[in-house]
Amino acid sequence: MMNEPEQQAAGGASVPSGTFGTRILELADRLAAHSETAGGLACTYLSAAHRAVAKDLQGLMQKASLDTTIDALGNVVGRYRSAISGAKTLIVGSHYDTVANAGRYDGRLGILTALVVAEELQRAGQALPFHLDVIAFAEEEGVRFSAPYLGSSAIAGRFDHALLQRRDAHGMTLADALYGIGSKPADIATLARRPEGLNGYLEVHIEQGPVLLNTNRPAGIVTAIAGCARHQVTVHGRAGHAGTVPMGARQDAAAAAAEIVLALERRCGAEPGLVGTVGKLTVPGGAINVIPARCELTFDIRAADDTVRDAAERDLRAEIAQIALRRGVSVDIAELYRNPAMACAPVLQARMAQALHRAGVDPFYLASGAGHDAVMFAGVTDIGMLFVRCGNGGISHHPSETVTAEDADCGARVLLDVILSLA
Amino acid sequence: MMNEPEQQAAGGASVPSGTFGTRILELADRLAAHSETAGGLACTYLSAAHRAVAKDLQGLMQKASLDTTIDALGNVVGRYRSAISGAKTLIVGSHYDTVANAGRYDGRLGILTALVVAEELQRAGQALPFHLDVIAFAEEEGVRFSAPYLGSSAIAGRFDHALLQRRDAHGMTLADALYGIGSKPADIATLARRPEGLNGYLEVHIEQGPVLLNTNRPAGIVTAIAGCARHQVTVHGRAGHAGTVPMGARQDAAAAAAEIVLALERRCGAEPGLVGTVGKLTVPGGAINVIPARCELTFDIRAADDTVRDAAERDLRAEIAQIALRRGVSVDIAELYRNPAMACAPVLQARMAQALHRAGVDPFYLASGAGHDAVMFAGVTDIGMLFVRCGNGGISHHPSETVTAEDADCGARVLLDVILSLA
Repeated sequence: MMNEPEQQAAGGASVPSGTFGTRILELADRLAAHSETAGGLACTYLSAAHRAVAKDLQGLMQKASLDTTIDALGNVVGRYRSAISGAKTLIVGSHYDTVANAGRYDGRLGILTALVVAEELQRAGQALPFHLDVIAFAEEEGVRFSAPYLGSSAIAGRFDHALLQRRDAHGMTLADALYGIGSKPADIATLARRPEGLNGYLEVHIEQGPVLLNTNRPAGIVTAIAGCARHQVTVHGRAGHAGTVPMGARQDAAAAAAEIVLALERRCGAEPGLVGTVGKLTVPGGAINVIPARCELTFDIRAADDTVRDAAERDLRAEIAQIALRRGVSVDIAELYRNPAMACAPVLQARMAQALHRAGVDPFYLASGAGHDAVMFAGVTDIGMLFVRCGNGGISHHPSETVTAEDADCGARVLLDVILSLA
Repeated sequence: MMNEPEQQAAGGASVPSGTFGTRILELADRLAAHSETAGGLACTYLSAAHRAVAKDLQGLMQKASLDTTIDALGNVVGRYRSAISGAKTLIVGSHYDTVANAGRYDGRLGILTALVVAEELQRAGQALPFHLDVIAFAEEEGVRFSAPYLGSSAIAGRFDHALLQRRDAHGMTLADALYGIGSKPADIATLARRPEGLNGYLEVHIEQGPVLLNTNRPAGIVTAIAGCARHQVTVHGRAGHAGTVPMGARQDAAAAAAEIVLALERRCGAEPGLVGTVGKLTVPGGAINVIPARCELTFDIRAADDTVRDAAERDLRAEIAQIALRRGVSVDIAELYRNPAMACAPVLQARMAQALHRAGVDPFYLASGAGHDAVMFAGVTDIGMLFVRCGNGGISHHPSETVTAEDADCGARVLLDVILSLA
């Protein structure tokens, strides 16, 4: 029974099991009531719905006796203050903006998990040797200004001030949108935390995938946030009449593209932790009776290990060159985007493993294929992420996104345990 | 020397070799000067350019002493009249409308070949036991009213009168377009020839493909005009996040479609005379970071033998079912269009073979993958088609479509010889 003292140390004994989870789901429903659309959930950055959610979150934080502010970018920050002079800060956050026709847990599960943990610390009168900042980031999805991580980038000291002149679909700049809510863009620079004042960043997030569901686990430890490389691929063949050019005499851009799609799938399927997607595929101006002269597609390749991703890209380029040579087509590959994998701190992974173990869950490790606010803090402070299982096949960015109260409860207990263990 | 008497019978000895070809190419250039566009050639049905070409052709026919009319649909008909009472009619025709940004030989080569042959018959005072009708069909490409063969269908007695209410891109009906040039749609019914009054239909056309070019032959005998089956194929998979769904857990509609594209290519490439094309291919609303839930593509499958085409379709459906089962996607296949293969009359093929042989060219047989006005006459009278070699890889429907004077000359000599042999 070696774990018993630690179970007591986690301090959760006084909270009836399931309480955290039920409250998190109730609060997620409450936040989802603020939407730009009647039928579903849409909460775009600085919309009326978005501002209502911020106010609601601020009220909840105030009720938990946190010191709260809504900052110049709309981030809602609630501090569970340490009494120790010169204390560093542990940030626990996620985002409250959503995509269109969203689920109600993407981002918000992490905020609400941090909130209920802070509520519990407050209720228990638990002293901490660090400030605990619960942060609801205003913008992560990048929907309105085609730029993600607006909120977390500012706190992490990485805000790109050129984005202030970026315009939304209605032509309004980010700067004007901020003036419109009474905010001063010049204040954004003051939001950056000093790295030496931080002792970590934690984020709980729904997995947005099926791995935990398929392996029957309520939660899992994120080892790294996958790096991503995106390319625009254009195949140039030769147009021809669908009836008159024998199969052997064709330089069919679509058939070459089809081989490329399958080459990507095969190569990325050959290695665990590597994923590759052709999300766009089109024959521009295609006609039913014309052999395609051109086919356009995109690559999105991700891995938790950059060397794995880079090797896959190299192999794929070699295979594409062979396909092009064999088929008499040419292929242009233009890089659109590339970011490296971000490792989660081993020390925080270990704390999570211990906490999961104490919660009676075998620690399970997985990489995050999606980006999260944590990415902004990588290199600034230690980052740690806990994934909570999604139902419905792992679907996200969709109204059928689900989390059970039991799994949300597990996430909150593990987060509380990790925070106490860091104290 | 068994061919010598026949060579004399062809009656071409008095025409210097190459004269036909040079004149055909000069006349093709002359007709191409009438265009809707400044830079290239576009001659859409009943446009000003189209009416100018009709007038020009009528003038050329009149100069050759043919009895000429421009009929209710705009077909230009020139009769080299037989003195024999009750003579039947041999039609030699092709079309003078073009696609946008067209080549100058598609359709027009056949008209001009028939014209120079009629000029030669006239010059030589050659009596024929049948009327020879040189017909420049007004509409074959189907550009303006999305309905091909308007001209030839009327002469063949197959005109679909419902098309009179079909509208062009500007909302004008075919009926109104005809009234606009002083024509009466009611007269169209009178254009139909009685099958018992015909003794055949001949058409010379550029190949619009690379077979004659690649096998180094000036002309070839068409065995059949391929049948065509067209389908709209829709693959339904499951959307997912490009970063979070492992390769093995995907139901990727685009990857399934890629397999289908290659299955079509492989099956149609396995049998000579069979061709299959995916001309349209798209992931509707595709996003670079989303696993495609849907992919749409089209099939165009053709063969000179319907049983060959049908067997390919059956095999393909079976393979698609396997792909769908293995990948957990569903595939809808909707037939858009189907027409049977049309065989060219063996007797006319034999006449062409003899004529080619006399012209010093080994008879070579090939199917037509493209449809032609001849299709309208199949089942009405015997049809025969001669293909003339294209340069530039066999490209057609494009400004770089070419024919050499030598090959055009060969086509005209063979046509003259066939006509004389039928006399």
